[in-house]
Amino acid sequence: MGDAAMPREHILIAYFEPLPPGLEEAIKAKFPNVDITTVILPRGVDVPSDVIQHATILVTFTNLPRPEDAHNSGIHGPPIAEWTLMNWLISSRKFITTYENQKKHHWDSITSYMNGMHDQVGKAVGILGYGSIGRQIGRAASALGMRVYAFTASPRLTPDSKRDRGYIVPGTGDADGAIPVSWHHGMDRESVRAFLSLGLDHLVVSLPLTPQTTHLLGEEEFRILSDAVSPQRPRPFVTNISRGKVFDQDALIAALTTGVLGGAALDVADPEPLPADHPLWEAPNCHISPHVSSLGKEYFPRSLDVLKENLGRMERGEELVNEYKRGKAY
Amino acid sequence: MGDAAMPREHILIAYFEPLPPGLEEAIKAKFPNVDITTVILPRGVDVPSDVIQHATILVTFTNLPRPEDAHNSGIHGPPIAEWTLMNWLISSRKFITTYENQKKHHWDSITSYMNGMHDQVGKAVGILGYGSIGRQIGRAASALGMRVYAFTASPRLTPDSKRDRGYIVPGTGDADGAIPVSWHHGMDRESVRAFLSLGLDHLVVSLPLTPQTTHLLGEEEFRILSDAVSPQRPRPFVTNISRGKVFDQDALIAALTTGVLGGAALDVADPEPLPADHPLWEAPNCHISPHVSSLGKEYFPRSLDVLKENLGRMERGEELVNEYKRGKAY
Repeated sequence: MGDAAMPREHILIAYFEPLPPGLEEAIKAKFPNVDITTVILPRGVDVPSDVIQHATILVTFTNLPRPEDAHNSGIHGPPIAEWTLMNWLISSRKFITTYENQKKHHWDSITSYMNGMHDQVGKAVGILGYGSIGRQIGRAASALGMRVYAFTASPRLTPDSKRDRGYIVPGTGDADGAIPVSWHHGMDRESVRAFLSLGLDHLVVSLPLTPQTTHLLGEEEFRILSDAVSPQRPRPFVTNISRGKVFDQDALIAALTTGVLGGAALDVADPEPLPADHPLWEAPNCHISPHVSSLGKEYFPRSLDVLKENLGRMERGEELVNEYKRGKAY
Repeated sequence: MGDAAMPREHILIAYFEPLPPGLEEAIKAKFPNVDITTVILPRGVDVPSDVIQHATILVTFTNLPRPEDAHNSGIHGPPIAEWTLMNWLISSRKFITTYENQKKHHWDSITSYMNGMHDQVGKAVGILGYGSIGRQIGRAASALGMRVYAFTASPRLTPDSKRDRGYIVPGTGDADGAIPVSWHHGMDRESVRAFLSLGLDHLVVSLPLTPQTTHLLGEEEFRILSDAVSPQRPRPFVTNISRGKVFDQDALIAALTTGVLGGAALDVADPEPLPADHPLWEAPNCHISPHVSSLGKEYFPRSLDVLKENLGRMERGEELVNEYKRGKAY
């Protein structure tokens, strides 16, 4: 390890406010042979060409030319998994009722709770898009006693192909892909429908938006999902942490209203922001958050953990984690 | 296995309404040599002496002469762990804000979410009373990337002493006691205070109410808990799934109001029901539910799973699970 082993890197950090104190200094102390430039840009604005042209590494928050690739980075697993679990449990444990009773200072009787609640033990969750986020959801679901079913675009038939090769937040995820009870794959609608007919109490959608995934889940898919689950069980609950357009949103509203689906947790909508007069806001047992499931105070420090990992790998001549492969849909 | 190996058992099932169809028949089909009597009693009423006198086994819901022993039975781990996680995440992921915004059909900006939320990775949870419920909380917390610290009344220095010997809902819990990063013990206040000074982001109280545990946690304990956590971290969050009187409730309200504690999830209160004019209802970031964290539609079927397990053990001449040991505090 020394100067000669590593070409001098120019890191450009784009953020919407000054970096938290000490972070840039910490990177510089660990890797004295890199140049670091910080640029403050309004949220969502493209990084200007003249600023980016000398950079060999871009570290950014909302200033990516391709923001839809941000979900590949491996840092979103924990917060999005926590957001997902939170919404499942709010629904299955009647938190809204509890909360509204507390506002009225009302200590409710146990009758409605006894029959209205259920737990997650033995429930089946299908994760459509078993990447870094889906794996942390799988890990947490498994700890609750659930069975996890994975779905990926390409087949994962060997132990090696099931491994997660990206950055993993320490202590989280499913590095070996060992958690799912079965693994399914396909790029076409029929493969997805076969997955939906496994008898899933939960469906989590963690796919990127592509032409193939646009409106992938509509009336027929929700019906297949529901019909496959025994009438004695609660109706399936769907979670969308992908993009709003992966769902046919009108079909989702109809499935919730008619009871084909038991509930939904949506961190995304079509369009965003969702207009105030949109009927999705009032769909039954539908929790909507404004595309914030990945956020939190750990976001920026964890992004720099990925950078530090890659700087170390570059010094050692190793393959980088989370490299964006241009032209690959997912 | 045969008639001779097992004395004829008389099971009395006490419940507040007729049993769900098929449950009694299922027990009878599996264990044809037991007698089963079902009695319907108002909730909370003691089982009358003349009804119980011929029973060798009592299966009951709210009609125990000693209802405070119900927490020993091993069936409460999953629902109470789910209730606990739900409340942590509602607090750390700002669900109340999200929910109130949804009611107003308001798609909020990300600014408040970026800095106001945090996740559980690397957080420390201390579980005061590492029994069957605490173990399932530990399992789930560990899956979120948290460090688990266990506390029990008696020392657990050998692998064998760390094992859970009770009934465990399949796929849940911590049978070997392998999850905690360290294990602490004691019956006195100083041992508890030493535990509270470990730097715990979360404290879960899962102790039975005894003379020693009454008002075990008060002003000084909350201060010790808070002072041990770095000022850069959120203030500690306390969860009470035990009994209201284990906390000095006035001290709890003060600690929440002054910011010594960051929040609380309480399934119990002092007294119950909590009067409408009690200040606890309005304590900051305090979630109160009416002693329902263990409930759900799985409650009764799971109770019968314990019965079935024990009937099998009796046939094989084995030690029973979840036997109530009279005179043992915890």
